[in-house]
Amino acid sequence: MTQTLPQSSSPTPPKKERVVLAYSGGLDTSVAIGWIGERTGAEVIAVAVDVGQGGEDLEVIRQRALDCGAVEAYVADARDEFAEEYCMPALKANALYMNAYPLVSALSRPVIVKHLVRAARQFGATTVAHGCTGKGNDQVRFEVGITSLAPDVRCIAPVRDLALTRDVAIEYANTHSLPIETTKHNPFSIDQNVWGRAIETGFLEDIWNAPTKDVYSYTDDPTHPPLPDEVVITFKEGVPVALDGHAVTPLQAIQELNRRAGAQGVGRIDIVEDRLVGIKSREVYEAPGAMALIAAHQELENVTLEREQARFKRGVGQRWTELVYDGQWFSPLKHSLDVFIDDTQRYVSGDIRLVLHGGRATVTGRRSDQSLYDFNLATYDTGDAYDQSQSKGFIEIFGMTSKLSAARDERFGNGVEL
Amino acid sequence: MTQTLPQSSSPTPPKKERVVLAYSGGLDTSVAIGWIGERTGAEVIAVAVDVGQGGEDLEVIRQRALDCGAVEAYVADARDEFAEEYCMPALKANALYMNAYPLVSALSRPVIVKHLVRAARQFGATTVAHGCTGKGNDQVRFEVGITSLAPDVRCIAPVRDLALTRDVAIEYANTHSLPIETTKHNPFSIDQNVWGRAIETGFLEDIWNAPTKDVYSYTDDPTHPPLPDEVVITFKEGVPVALDGHAVTPLQAIQELNRRAGAQGVGRIDIVEDRLVGIKSREVYEAPGAMALIAAHQELENVTLEREQARFKRGVGQRWTELVYDGQWFSPLKHSLDVFIDDTQRYVSGDIRLVLHGGRATVTGRRSDQSLYDFNLATYDTGDAYDQSQSKGFIEIFGMTSKLSAARDERFGNGVEL
Amino acid sequence: MTQTLPQSSSPTPPKKERVVLAYSGGLDTSVAIGWIGERTGAEVIAVAVDVGQGGEDLEVIRQRALDCGAVEAYVADARDEFAEEYCMPALKANALYMNAYPLVSALSRPVIVKHLVRAARQFGATTVAHGCTGKGNDQVRFEVGITSLAPDVRCIAPVRDLALTRDVAIEYANTHSLPIETTKHNPFSIDQNVWGRAIETGFLEDIWNAPTKDVYSYTDDPTHPPLPDEVVITFKEGVPVALDGHAVTPLQAIQELNRRAGAQGVGRIDIVEDRLVGIKSREVYEAPGAMALIAAHQELENVTLEREQARFKRGVGQRWTELVYDGQWFSPLKHSLDVFIDDTQRYVSGDIRLVLHGGRATVTGRRSDQSLYDFNLATYDTGDAYDQSQSKGFIEIFGMTSKLSAARDERFGNGVEL
Amino acid sequence: MTQTLPQSSSPTPPKKERVVLAYSGGLDTSVAIGWIGERTGAEVIAVAVDVGQGGEDLEVIRQRALDCGAVEAYVADARDEFAEEYCMPALKANALYMNAYPLVSALSRPVIVKHLVRAARQFGATTVAHGCTGKGNDQVRFEVGITSLAPDVRCIAPVRDLALTRDVAIEYANTHSLPIETTKHNPFSIDQNVWGRAIETGFLEDIWNAPTKDVYSYTDDPTHPPLPDEVVITFKEGVPVALDGHAVTPLQAIQELNRRAGAQGVGRIDIVEDRLVGIKSREVYEAPGAMALIAAHQELENVTLEREQARFKRGVGQRWTELVYDGQWFSPLKHSLDVFIDDTQRYVSGDIRLVLHGGRATVTGRRSDQSLYDFNLATYDTGDAYDQSQSKGFIEIFGMTSKLSAARDERFGNGVEL
Repeated sequence: MTQTLPQSSSPTPPKKERVVLAYSGGLDTSVAIGWIGERTGAEVIAVAVDVGQGGEDLEVIRQRALDCGAVEAYVADARDEFAEEYCMPALKANALYMNAYPLVSALSRPVIVKHLVRAARQFGATTVAHGCTGKGNDQVRFEVGITSLAPDVRCIAPVRDLALTRDVAIEYANTHSLPIETTKHNPFSIDQNVWGRAIETGFLEDIWNAPTKDVYSYTDDPTHPPLPDEVVITFKEGVPVALDGHAVTPLQAIQELNRRAGAQGVGRIDIVEDRLVGIKSREVYEAPGAMALIAAHQELENVTLEREQARFKRGVGQRWTELVYDGQWFSPLKHSLDVFIDDTQRYVSGDIRLVLHGGRATVTGRRSDQSLYDFNLATYDTGDAYDQSQSKGFIEIFGMTSKLSAARDERFGNGVEL
Repeated sequence: MTQTLPQSSSPTPPKKERVVLAYSGGLDTSVAIGWIGERTGAEVIAVAVDVGQGGEDLEVIRQRALDCGAVEAYVADARDEFAEEYCMPALKANALYMNAYPLVSALSRPVIVKHLVRAARQFGATTVAHGCTGKGNDQVRFEVGITSLAPDVRCIAPVRDLALTRDVAIEYANTHSLPIETTKHNPFSIDQNVWGRAIETGFLEDIWNAPTKDVYSYTDDPTHPPLPDEVVITFKEGVPVALDGHAVTPLQAIQELNRRAGAQGVGRIDIVEDRLVGIKSREVYEAPGAMALIAAHQELENVTLEREQARFKRGVGQRWTELVYDGQWFSPLKHSLDVFIDDTQRYVSGDIRLVLHGGRATVTGRRSDQSLYDFNLATYDTGDAYDQSQSKGFIEIFGMTSKLSAARDERFGNGVEL
Repeated sequence: MTQTLPQSSSPTPPKKERVVLAYSGGLDTSVAIGWIGERTGAEVIAVAVDVGQGGEDLEVIRQRALDCGAVEAYVADARDEFAEEYCMPALKANALYMNAYPLVSALSRPVIVKHLVRAARQFGATTVAHGCTGKGNDQVRFEVGITSLAPDVRCIAPVRDLALTRDVAIEYANTHSLPIETTKHNPFSIDQNVWGRAIETGFLEDIWNAPTKDVYSYTDDPTHPPLPDEVVITFKEGVPVALDGHAVTPLQAIQELNRRAGAQGVGRIDIVEDRLVGIKSREVYEAPGAMALIAAHQELENVTLEREQARFKRGVGQRWTELVYDGQWFSPLKHSLDVFIDDTQRYVSGDIRLVLHGGRATVTGRRSDQSLYDFNLATYDTGDAYDQSQSKGFIEIFGMTSKLSAARDERFGNGVEL
Repeated sequence: MTQTLPQSSSPTPPKKERVVLAYSGGLDTSVAIGWIGERTGAEVIAVAVDVGQGGEDLEVIRQRALDCGAVEAYVADARDEFAEEYCMPALKANALYMNAYPLVSALSRPVIVKHLVRAARQFGATTVAHGCTGKGNDQVRFEVGITSLAPDVRCIAPVRDLALTRDVAIEYANTHSLPIETTKHNPFSIDQNVWGRAIETGFLEDIWNAPTKDVYSYTDDPTHPPLPDEVVITFKEGVPVALDGHAVTPLQAIQELNRRAGAQGVGRIDIVEDRLVGIKSREVYEAPGAMALIAAHQELENVTLEREQARFKRGVGQRWTELVYDGQWFSPLKHSLDVFIDDTQRYVSGDIRLVLHGGRATVTGRRSDQSLYDFNLATYDTGDAYDQSQSKGFIEIFGMTSKLSAARDERFGNGVEL
């Protein structure tokens, strides 16, 4: 695979190569439109995908792409698609990378990839370009995703492959009077979507520094919260279907909980993270809706999953999360783990009452027709249905291998010292 | 194994069988002293172990046991032993059963078992008795532990095996004028030690009920916290050795953080839990020190463990936790998992700054001479030492199996729909 | 749950309790018909299930049950059902307990259980009886299976629960002139079905003794084999569909390979095995068809499964195997593992050429339209399509975490000694 | 990292860069001595390591390296080191990649790496060169190993990085009259050491082709074996210490079993294998000693390991094997898995009797003072020490979660169809 695209130089105007560019509307990708054209001779089609990142109107972004020289601009509202087909599987998996990070960016890459490849097919492009650097995870997620959906399509990253540094971009935008601001200094690198928001670089690269208040946008300061907010989330087969009794779509559930849990400062995360590309990096995240939903979903699983299924599912969830973090959304193992997880969700239905307050999302009640919690077995009151006489035999046989092994330790002088 | 002990009935006074009883000083075990004697003809030795549960003085408890008829009473201050040899391994494992419960009771059982067996050896007892019912985990932890340390020793549980119900106990205490209060109604069943406190039964058995304020004792209400409290915890090889620069023992670290994190309402847990004995039960826990330490330890691991070691260790930690929960503290697998975990802790040294406030224990800084976080590799500033040109080849080969597999999907009409 | 059934003693003949008995036609279960009746007052319905164990005609067995006093006798030819719904899932999982034992008896128990419960429903029985002892795995498989399909049905094991020892059975059969031989001394305990044959007890209990020739029945001595036998097995989605080009059902595939691989002495197994009930036992098995099929299936997976899917599937297969060995066929985790495994089998189609000879089943060729083996990538000949220049970058990034970690070892004096 | 070495061109003769070359004595690496010198201006030190590959005398090889232009030649007899520190850990892990391949080449790379780095330090070299191509696993094993032991040392692969193709090598050797044969056509690519022998490429790249007889060298044809050969292997803590009662070193054990098991055709392997670099390749191996030892070791573990430890160890062994296959010998996770495995081997001591015949290594007896097999518990004879009455309670509680879950299935119409 070569990183440069063939330049056409034949006398009769040939059909130019076309490049689909993942377009955010910001400085880097606005400049990339022209930069790719100049460096490779190709025509650029800008593709912007709404995954709930907020900010500018898609139509404004579309127009800017055209103003910056794109021959076509394709915009897609993928918010419901993202919530239903990407965030919900992550919820079912209780996906927390390193037990902490709800896969915010890692989840949005595959849905964006899908739209990029769709646009490449539609507009006859042979290459897809993205704005990632060469030391992050996202380049892997984009490129492995793209070659998985379209093995014939090439990938290019102007920042990494065509020397499009930040300084070069500002210079280029000014020189070409691109309709994009170049003066605003961004202290952090930010990526956001409806599932959460990721903040990195800047003074956060010193891992002894605490995040400052200006880092956050989805969440208010949990130190000074408003009054506690109680919400009842109704799940059906692992997916939220109602809040406080009002039916919601997955997108609405996330948005509403972003608002309510965000107001309470729920879902701030600050970790040193193991990147796929071999380095550790410091990351701050906000994911109020995601973290509230995962807390509720986990507890509903506690009530409805059989013990051994639940124990094994934790390992499956961890592997699912690592795969998705590592850009393997479209891999066969990811698919097989999905069918496993879906099978476990058959009875994950019911209500979870959650109190949101001061940075905490606390489960305070659960009820489910599918519950495996059995009051009559659990209670110590009269009416107890548990036959305690069975325990003696259970303990004897359950503990037998340990007992025999301990007796051997004793025999060989390796017994526990008393 | 038979549940009743042989009664001596020979004319010349024979040497009576002796039973070591795990003695708490409360109603049930105070009655059990006489009850076991009457039912089995054996002499009872009361053993009380201080694992940091607070409450009465050990000497008071010792005297009560004798007053209730024990032929001997053995008390042990096992607080340091418990903190060092039981809580610290749990910390190194980040042990949270079902990702939530820091194994409070499950950890104390094996250290109590050790003292029970020691006393049995010392006083020539052939049987160990404990106060557990027949439907909980603790009976398994006691009995599997005991037979692992002393395969020849028999176990007996008066509540389960000798029909010593609550009502019987009250009646017996009154009839025999035992020096123990029988009027106090306990709305919950409680177990506590320095690592935390467990509360169950009562109105909590209705899993839709939220815990009420009177449930808690180790933690203040996080809804109305005092000012934020910042603490720097210094670890050496996975174990806390200093707080805010002052050297501490493991026991002191836990106690001090119980106090400071408890004042902020940190470490309240409320889950439906999968018991080993086949049922689900609703449990409320408080573990302010444990939860603060685990949060800090996990983040220090994030900074100091290599990625693949960290990924695998999560599975090891889960299995370790399940084994300990299931009463397999003295099992060979538990031992092998311990040596694995210890090996990973070689470089888990450094400082974690934690802010305790309103129910949250938030890491805000980390520093370590053993850190694998490398600013020069991670930074996007000038001085970046990462060679981004390697990424292209990495992505190509890393993604190859997925790509070949996706191409096959395409060929057989199973490709992702665009 | 009580182990004895209520005896009717009312003046007007009441409806008697009914017990369904798993009936083999042999001495123990023939005696059990009357023994259960006498001890419990219940009527006995004998159920015999053909899982390919060979031996007597089902109709003969049915008549013997009636002659021994059964009020009803139900016989079922479950051979195809067993092969399709029990052996094929085991094949897809490459199920070898302790990497050795293809779950012969463990697989047949659930299908027998299904027919027992079906008969219980049909004949209005409230109890199911089986012939197992109290120290084997099969009692668990029967009873957990039965309560999973019919939680209201009770289980009883005359050998374990009603003191029906071998000597008692011989005495009873002679006294009552039951139409069953009592003189034949069986040196081993044997269980067999189409998937294999299990032999235990007798002189094999001395684990230093080698098996003698009379132990075997499904396999000829591999020491003196006939000429090598080459067979091509065609799989579709993990299941054999043709042998040497001739279409076969799963049952036919197993039977035919039992014959051909058995003639070559393929599939003899001799291990010390970890029973679920806490002890180790010495077991000899013969499973010529099963072992030949598993060898072929594993290699077809090598050709058609993506690497990470294959790596994870090994762990899933092990857990599946342990669950089935442990009598958890009808458990929710087993179900979820099944859907995982089924998803992996989508492309496990193609031909495997196997040479059967002298105890070996050796794969010598494989071909598949769904193969992920790509000659053009693998070859070192001209035409090589692999871009070797990518490797440098891959190695650099793939090895980075180890390299950084090794540099730390060096820094702290823990480097590898040269 | 750059792939070319700086050429010295200063007037006063500078100290030349030095390259350590992994030298086999064959055509490719003999040519590489001069080729590297010409292309990079560096001096070449040839390093040959004896890992039991047989063939030429080390002294002959050393002289040839010097004759081909090496400034220094270092040879090391690493056979005992390889057997003790590399093969024995693999044996303890029962390391079989994809359940089949005993890691022959993967094991030798790290010991060779150690000697390469030692030589680099000794002779002041800044670069290590090896003869691997750019599409195999060995380049990764060499380079990740080298950078783990010496992060400052650069790696270079003349075949991959300096265009040293086979044709170029022959031409070069002829032109420069190197003392090495260039006419012999090698139909396969071969790597061998005392743990086994790997054969690939040539007509084997058509995966439907069976291996021909000339492929093999360590093993005789199992189709026409000599008389059966019985051997008793004595292990101490997982390592063979005697054969038929005669004390042996690990190296001697492997060599002797290579001879005896090889004469019986034991240990031929033929698989399609998942390479780390993303492709599948067809590999044939011979490892008579290794496979015989692993068979014996596994069965001794069956006798001496506690069940849960054994079950978990299988997953650990698989991960260990994948790591070593993937070139991560010196990684922290590999180290932690080693301490886990070593801990499990404490009691893996005793005798295994093995019959070697016609391609089979069959365990026929086992005895061990450390055995957990207990005749008195296992036997069905008189003297049985197992209390069968415990089973009823065990089954009831062990099966409870499945039973409750099945009852729910029934309630929601998802019960098993009868």
